[in-house]
Amino acid sequence: MTNQPIPGKRKTKWPVAVLGATGAVGQNFIRLLADHPWFDLVEVAASERSAGRKYGEATRWLEGPPPPSSIQNRRVIACDPGVVSAPIVFSALDAVVAGEVEMAFAKAGKFVLSNAKNFRMEPDVPLVIPEVNGDHLALIECQRKRRGWDGAIVTNANCSATVAAVALAPLHKRYGIKQLFLTTMQAVSGAGYPGVPSLDILGNVIPYIADEEPKLEREMLKLLGTFADGEVTSAGFKVSAHTNRVPVEHGHTICMTIGFEDAPSPDQAIETMRSWEGLPSTAGLPTRPKHPLVVTDAPDRPQAKRDVNAGNGMTVTVGRVRRDAVLDLRMVALGHNTVRGAAGGSVLNAELLATTGDFDSA
Amino acid sequence: MTNQPIPGKRKTKWPVAVLGATGAVGQNFIRLLADHPWFDLVEVAASERSAGRKYGEATRWLEGPPPPSSIQNRRVIACDPGVVSAPIVFSALDAVVAGEVEMAFAKAGKFVLSNAKNFRMEPDVPLVIPEVNGDHLALIECQRKRRGWDGAIVTNANCSATVAAVALAPLHKRYGIKQLFLTTMQAVSGAGYPGVPSLDILGNVIPYIADEEPKLEREMLKLLGTFADGEVTSAGFKVSAHTNRVPVEHGHTICMTIGFEDAPSPDQAIETMRSWEGLPSTAGLPTRPKHPLVVTDAPDRPQAKRDVNAGNGMTVTVGRVRRDAVLDLRMVALGHNTVRGAAGGSVLNAELLATTGDFDSA
Amino acid sequence: MTNQPIPGKRKTKWPVAVLGATGAVGQNFIRLLADHPWFDLVEVAASERSAGRKYGEATRWLEGPPPPSSIQNRRVIACDPGVVSAPIVFSALDAVVAGEVEMAFAKAGKFVLSNAKNFRMEPDVPLVIPEVNGDHLALIECQRKRRGWDGAIVTNANCSATVAAVALAPLHKRYGIKQLFLTTMQAVSGAGYPGVPSLDILGNVIPYIADEEPKLEREMLKLLGTFADGEVTSAGFKVSAHTNRVPVEHGHTICMTIGFEDAPSPDQAIETMRSWEGLPSTAGLPTRPKHPLVVTDAPDRPQAKRDVNAGNGMTVTVGRVRRDAVLDLRMVALGHNTVRGAAGGSVLNAELLATTGDFDSA
Amino acid sequence: MTNQPIPGKRKTKWPVAVLGATGAVGQNFIRLLADHPWFDLVEVAASERSAGRKYGEATRWLEGPPPPSSIQNRRVIACDPGVVSAPIVFSALDAVVAGEVEMAFAKAGKFVLSNAKNFRMEPDVPLVIPEVNGDHLALIECQRKRRGWDGAIVTNANCSATVAAVALAPLHKRYGIKQLFLTTMQAVSGAGYPGVPSLDILGNVIPYIADEEPKLEREMLKLLGTFADGEVTSAGFKVSAHTNRVPVEHGHTICMTIGFEDAPSPDQAIETMRSWEGLPSTAGLPTRPKHPLVVTDAPDRPQAKRDVNAGNGMTVTVGRVRRDAVLDLRMVALGHNTVRGAAGGSVLNAELLATTGDFDSA
Repeated sequence: MTNQPIPGKRKTKWPVAVLGATGAVGQNFIRLLADHPWFDLVEVAASERSAGRKYGEATRWLEGPPPPSSIQNRRVIACDPGVVSAPIVFSALDAVVAGEVEMAFAKAGKFVLSNAKNFRMEPDVPLVIPEVNGDHLALIECQRKRRGWDGAIVTNANCSATVAAVALAPLHKRYGIKQLFLTTMQAVSGAGYPGVPSLDILGNVIPYIADEEPKLEREMLKLLGTFADGEVTSAGFKVSAHTNRVPVEHGHTICMTIGFEDAPSPDQAIETMRSWEGLPSTAGLPTRPKHPLVVTDAPDRPQAKRDVNAGNGMTVTVGRVRRDAVLDLRMVALGHNTVRGAAGGSVLNAELLATTGDFDSA
Repeated sequence: MTNQPIPGKRKTKWPVAVLGATGAVGQNFIRLLADHPWFDLVEVAASERSAGRKYGEATRWLEGPPPPSSIQNRRVIACDPGVVSAPIVFSALDAVVAGEVEMAFAKAGKFVLSNAKNFRMEPDVPLVIPEVNGDHLALIECQRKRRGWDGAIVTNANCSATVAAVALAPLHKRYGIKQLFLTTMQAVSGAGYPGVPSLDILGNVIPYIADEEPKLEREMLKLLGTFADGEVTSAGFKVSAHTNRVPVEHGHTICMTIGFEDAPSPDQAIETMRSWEGLPSTAGLPTRPKHPLVVTDAPDRPQAKRDVNAGNGMTVTVGRVRRDAVLDLRMVALGHNTVRGAAGGSVLNAELLATTGDFDSA
Repeated sequence: MTNQPIPGKRKTKWPVAVLGATGAVGQNFIRLLADHPWFDLVEVAASERSAGRKYGEATRWLEGPPPPSSIQNRRVIACDPGVVSAPIVFSALDAVVAGEVEMAFAKAGKFVLSNAKNFRMEPDVPLVIPEVNGDHLALIECQRKRRGWDGAIVTNANCSATVAAVALAPLHKRYGIKQLFLTTMQAVSGAGYPGVPSLDILGNVIPYIADEEPKLEREMLKLLGTFADGEVTSAGFKVSAHTNRVPVEHGHTICMTIGFEDAPSPDQAIETMRSWEGLPSTAGLPTRPKHPLVVTDAPDRPQAKRDVNAGNGMTVTVGRVRRDAVLDLRMVALGHNTVRGAAGGSVLNAELLATTGDFDSA
Repeated sequence: MTNQPIPGKRKTKWPVAVLGATGAVGQNFIRLLADHPWFDLVEVAASERSAGRKYGEATRWLEGPPPPSSIQNRRVIACDPGVVSAPIVFSALDAVVAGEVEMAFAKAGKFVLSNAKNFRMEPDVPLVIPEVNGDHLALIECQRKRRGWDGAIVTNANCSATVAAVALAPLHKRYGIKQLFLTTMQAVSGAGYPGVPSLDILGNVIPYIADEEPKLEREMLKLLGTFADGEVTSAGFKVSAHTNRVPVEHGHTICMTIGFEDAPSPDQAIETMRSWEGLPSTAGLPTRPKHPLVVTDAPDRPQAKRDVNAGNGMTVTVGRVRRDAVLDLRMVALGHNTVRGAAGGSVLNAELLATTGDFDSA
């Protein structure tokens, strides 16, 4: 996280809150916001079970050094827009409650940066990876007009869709994807906590993740779609996915086979990915890595255990770019599912919004 | 293993030997032959390092109950056709030496049932899964004629190719495969012993297995090809593979996406696989499972840990048969890589040869 | 499981039921009883949530081939002595409900063979490993007298206590244990299903299992205690345990350091363990392995993955028996926690009771 | 690693070399020295097989970001004191060659900081953990006198002995250990690369590590011994160890049961460990963590996966301090085996030597 000065003429950080702060994704939001140069984490909200308790006591901290005592000692408050004062909220809520709660916050005039799936496919809700389709944030205006609220809901994508879209964005833009086959090997942290029972996954592969294939397929197309005249047009190519759970802690590995309108050679594809810098307006955002996309030459990489933390978990690593015998190209992509593919994605969305002036009223 | 009477008018079992008996695949041959109703394991052969020692002392037994003391106490002999008396030999030799050694045995008039890759793609060498293409054994005649030897080399296929071919054989026969995408998640036992270092694979996926993708692609086509007029014509469809290593002990899981000449619905495909019984002449072979191919209805199966031992490791389990958005069908197959996909494959080949009269002179 | 004739003059098997049949331990009872030569599984009972549904539908079958369709199709009934007709019930109930429910069954005149911890340390309740202390079953008479019921509760011990007690029984009897240090490395299946979250245990050791150390310490002493005059006198030596969870599926490994009254040499200890045959009256019980205790000479065994299924999961394997620099002996023991250490233990208890005539009225 | 100014009046960093630089421990030395404030890594030496090649090509980099290109491009040189110019060398050599090579370097006047076991137990060779027994470095003088060389050999201890000694140093000093029982659960990285085959350790515990128990027992006593009159007197208490390999990547967990001369309560022991600051002269050394020893209150910690990187891998974490039923105290310690327990240990030894003036002639 680079230490950029706060955008605009602001002197103080924006106050922010996390909804669903005690769960696995919530903890990642806490970690990323605990020492953020632009945002000041002023409130942690969670379910009624936790409300009223100190954050440190209400939370079974899963990974890495626990948050500073200033956060540990903060009282958990309810996920209620009447109780949360911060104008910007990050939502790590479970899909079961996210729909209703996020809408209430947006109606109450708050910016909701959500990891939940509920609104991702709504036509007027931006589904955004800043370097890939940051311009889709323009949907906020349509959203407000259509829904008649002052707040907004902005979503990050499904973890696998995010990894795939970062890897494919430069290729799709230049060569036009026609057909795409994806097979994922997904880490257990993608299922939250307690998540996948160890009896199910130790020494095993589970070739099924509920509802993951349709999410991956449809979100990919929205992410790689184009914004014009107040709406996003889906990328329109054909995509087919197999999703699998593997005994890996963090990092989704995705095998891809791709057919293009105008097929590049492997070398051209590599050069295109390496020279891609993402949407220029995202350069220098605090949690944006210098290289959102890295291509490795090592014959046996990317590997979850060895490459997942590239760019502090925000870089997608691609390898094994080679010709395909049926379509045009084969390659493998890897990214951090709980950082780039979840909390980190929404934090980066917020950072982009901070530079566009959208938060100025917040 | 069913206890069928010895075929033909034979009163005694055929004497057999294992070459490369101390390694991981060799141990599987030993296990499968230790108590075989038709074959009598009379000799164990290995490299010079082991020759002369007792088998039990020369071998680091990897799995399951160790072999009976009659085998433990047998002296390991050299892999030399002048030393091995058995007319039928199972080869678990490493590819580095298998080429030369197996040829020497064939020249010396012996039947070589090989797990090595060296001769698999030779036009006059049968590459056989009995239930799938047992009729390819007719190549033996061409082989003998062309090479001028009395012996023969018969090979089992690469482990992943075997699992895929069993699953696809009935579908290809009936609906004609046009395009095939495979992504494997392969167990560490496929790499032998010591094989994959634990530092590489614990909590990791390695998206690369040296030389595996071309082997899988080309062997599939030979396995599903047709024998006529003294030669095997390749199946001719297009196939593309990603192969990955995962932290699983036994069992290769394969995600498949398939395009057909004449596409079946998922229900038709399931029905076709369920009603498939394999080449009739293989029914009742001792190591043939009743069902070489099983289709599960469970939404999250097949799973390596839970399904790998179906049919004593000789059954391939298929699941998640569903429509594909780009081609026609998607499904997942799983099989035991060191049983069906290695030693068990060659033992079954030998059993089929025993019933055809090929061994009568042996 | 050997196929012994039904004891006594009985012509038909005893009808039995399983309480808590849908959970992980319950499934093990089902597996062991599905084809039992003496017991006929006539009823499966579980919580209200499952009652009324078919067993196959109410159960997420965790391991091995699912039970025969006769059991799959059986309706789950309530854990109520008024509903369960079988006179002999195996309890896989959770400790939260086991106390009340098991007492109700005993009061109703039924034999309860329990895996729950609730009654294990009651002075009038037998805590039994047949080969070790089958004579403690005589407590049943005291129990009935004291509690005024016609039924009975008989318990198997904690999984780790069971493995340790089988290994130590012959040594304690002959040389008198004075001090015992145990450090366990326990499999995840010991925590049931869903049990240990994979995020907690993949690539990790958790040096804590709630309430396990006191259970292990106190149950050991009761198991190795002596029955006389209607009561069991605790073994009385000092015992101290560390219990750890490791990423292993089945099999608890226990490192032991032992001080004796009359210390044997390692060779004497090995000889004593090897010549031990367990309580003579248990010889030939269907689920008793020929050797309840095996000592291996391999320098790096016992190993969970390789030795856990010895004797169909009923044999405890000991290795690395060596002199200790502080006390007298060090050694390592391993046993199957969900077979010998849970369901298999209670089934063996029932088999012993079947031969003593205790079930004759049942 | 804190950025302390170079000790003494030195203006430039000390030039150092790594012997055995391509292996697993060698890579850790490279990582720790690549950007060291006091040492300048000027040479990388390895076996003849690697000599002459670029370091980046000769090395299969195992973990974390690869070293800077300045090191990647350096030519590997031979482990020969006539070829290595640096006066200070870190040895990651295998024990098979370390004896001869390290002696040659010492004879040639060089300081050898060694991770090899060969000289650890020599009476005139310091076996040092700076915070624990940095004063043992005074043995160097005796070593030079006795051996007649200008160089010196200083060793770090076995990984498990290191973790145990850090945890026990403050307790032994204050309360006098009389009896100590240790059971380790050791990570696979302790066996180097390729090290433990995955087929051996996936889902398994191996209750044996060759030669580890005697090393752990005897090195503990030397580490906790006292230096006086030119020699180290062993700590003299009784110690007994079980050592096990578990499927963990990094971090050795050690269960300890301790008897003392003058037993503390658990609270006193915790207070003693928490107030311990290690040898004062080590305060501020660049790789010394602020807290070499941390005691956690969490009931289920320390855990390898979650605590191994405390203090950049240099902090030992202790937990579960509780009364013992047989001796006095039980507790669990965890430390990073390849950092604190290997390369990091020798780097810290070198840092302490840099401040004592020992390196001034170098």
